[in-house]
Amino acid sequence: MIYFDNSATTRPFPEVIDVFQKVAHQYFANPSSPHYLGAEAERLLEHTRKKIAEQLKVQPNEVIFTSGGTEGNNLAIKGIALEHQGRGKHMITSQIEHPSVIEAFKGLERLGFEVTYVNVDRYGYVDPEAIEKEIREDTILISTMSVNNELGTIQPIEEIAKMAKRYPKLYLHVDHVQGVGKVPLSLKQIPIDLLTVSGHKIHGLNGTGVLFVRGGIKLFPLFHGGGHENNRRSGTENAAGMVAFGKAMRLIAEKERDHVNELKGIREELISQLDQMNDVVINSPQEGAPHILNISVPGVKPEVMVHALAEKEIFISTKSACSSKQPDVSSVLQACHLAEDVTTSALRISLSYQNDRSEVEPFMTSFKQTVHYLKGKGEK
Amino acid sequence: MIYFDNSATTRPFPEVIDVFQKVAHQYFANPSSPHYLGAEAERLLEHTRKKIAEQLKVQPNEVIFTSGGTEGNNLAIKGIALEHQGRGKHMITSQIEHPSVIEAFKGLERLGFEVTYVNVDRYGYVDPEAIEKEIREDTILISTMSVNNELGTIQPIEEIAKMAKRYPKLYLHVDHVQGVGKVPLSLKQIPIDLLTVSGHKIHGLNGTGVLFVRGGIKLFPLFHGGGHENNRRSGTENAAGMVAFGKAMRLIAEKERDHVNELKGIREELISQLDQMNDVVINSPQEGAPHILNISVPGVKPEVMVHALAEKEIFISTKSACSSKQPDVSSVLQACHLAEDVTTSALRISLSYQNDRSEVEPFMTSFKQTVHYLKGKGEK
Repeated sequence: MIYFDNSATTRPFPEVIDVFQKVAHQYFANPSSPHYLGAEAERLLEHTRKKIAEQLKVQPNEVIFTSGGTEGNNLAIKGIALEHQGRGKHMITSQIEHPSVIEAFKGLERLGFEVTYVNVDRYGYVDPEAIEKEIREDTILISTMSVNNELGTIQPIEEIAKMAKRYPKLYLHVDHVQGVGKVPLSLKQIPIDLLTVSGHKIHGLNGTGVLFVRGGIKLFPLFHGGGHENNRRSGTENAAGMVAFGKAMRLIAEKERDHVNELKGIREELISQLDQMNDVVINSPQEGAPHILNISVPGVKPEVMVHALAEKEIFISTKSACSSKQPDVSSVLQACHLAEDVTTSALRISLSYQNDRSEVEPFMTSFKQTVHYLKGKGEK
Repeated sequence: MIYFDNSATTRPFPEVIDVFQKVAHQYFANPSSPHYLGAEAERLLEHTRKKIAEQLKVQPNEVIFTSGGTEGNNLAIKGIALEHQGRGKHMITSQIEHPSVIEAFKGLERLGFEVTYVNVDRYGYVDPEAIEKEIREDTILISTMSVNNELGTIQPIEEIAKMAKRYPKLYLHVDHVQGVGKVPLSLKQIPIDLLTVSGHKIHGLNGTGVLFVRGGIKLFPLFHGGGHENNRRSGTENAAGMVAFGKAMRLIAEKERDHVNELKGIREELISQLDQMNDVVINSPQEGAPHILNISVPGVKPEVMVHALAEKEIFISTKSACSSKQPDVSSVLQACHLAEDVTTSALRISLSYQNDRSEVEPFMTSFKQTVHYLKGKGEK
């Protein structure tokens, strides 16, 4: 099997599943319970929170455990909007954000908020100046992703953050779900206010994640209740999931430190070989994230391509799994103003540290064969 | 160890942890991915959803997977409020709901909604007539729990539902978190619109749960995004957690069918023996849920009692784990108008099918000894 659909989800590290099982079994007590079984579970949680905070170079009380990227993005955006609407009801984002960002904003529009969706260029880059032009007196939030989930475009977060810093009344949220462990982003050096991370994109478990919220920033909770997570996300803590998330964070950091160049190498090799195929258009920027490569095969329906490759035990995807139930066209590629035969035939190849350079050759052989077959030029 | 803190959380069934591990390992693909690995994960999910729906006697598309009870309650209440506010902004609940209900309503008050918190009687019973009196033209939601989490009081949900049914413009939400598997509630016979269930109260895993939403009812999502869960709760599905939740549901139903009388027997035996102690006041109604017993030991601080028992490997709690970080007093018992020395000295004994009648004697021996010691009448 060649699994090149890692931006949809990654295979959990075995160590992550093991630690989940261990904690679910041994530390089952409610961390809020007043007896020592509860206190033990709470200590484990807080130890995990501290370790994650150290890795992100932030304070433990700035780390909120969530159920994943969609919750993180919704909590950041709606939490700021509903809490700070007295100061203004205008927000800015880009046209190529993940559905959990775009749709959260669309939801807020229904509640009377106003949202500006800035344009991107041919490769999906957001221009900090384009954002700055839209800032108004009543703007309370800017939300941009660090790495686009379909193209792998790395946004100029540092420039955006430095620009945003000049407007002290607004907050900056970054969806870092696709970036963690592959594209460095320093919360110590870059003035970001809120940052979303998801477990299942870094070989952690589904249903786990973290939202970083800079100290002192108030959020309107999506989950009111017992006041967990410093009154920002109530609900009995999923201790096993949190510890498993912490484990995934530590392991992905090691992989990034030791193996990111190998990942880049696989992508470069793929680009180099795919670039030689007349039937293929490369949509991603050359200098994109090391794990995402978007291409189109104009004239071939992407679903057909995906299924044909799956028959050969090769797994890639069309666009974002989170928008895969919509029709063929990629709204991300549309926003980049690519031609219609490109936006309707896009394929995403997404890698992880579990992939290997030795997979490139068999992938390319099957890929070429499948393209030729589907274009009526060869055998299946 | 005698673990009598099951209303805070239960110990997961080993089968639940096993199936989680198996699914996390084998079905790791994103159920929204277009290839067959994704399709396999999706089939597993939908099979689980169908089984849960059969057990609840509802339709599969009425079952929304959540991260637990707090999310379920917040999604039900805020989802109805924000979606249907055009019809009215008034809602009704009781004074003794779980913090995830009370605080969700307090949050909505900050957004301009109006909430009536009806009184309860000495045992925490909500009077359906008291609710009906508060219904207005602009009332859109009634929310009551089936079983109170501190007292075990079983609310007259059938009467409330029948009354509410006469007002077709309003919805009825029931927080069934403490009731599932212990107190029957038929969604086939009782016209409830939304019902919350949590995994970790039925020996499932933290971070799992279900919200039942009667077909056709629109909710404003807390999580916007890829349109998962029929556009009501976006986010990559936690397939392993969902299957584990389904397993817990099946197992708890078997336990309820075969062992609920044993559970009732343990509680009755505890009541009978505690009732003979002069130092003890029994706060729960005799006819309460079979697993919750609330008592007070006036003059003894409940935390001190809990810690002293924990030293003897006996685990009970003060009040709700979700409000245990507040001061001593129980707001539930206050709402029942109990005396101050009772509301500030409450203890909750909460049972599960993993408890056994043989635990009553050692519990009572240690409990009596501890009360006598703390009252200065005997040895530790």
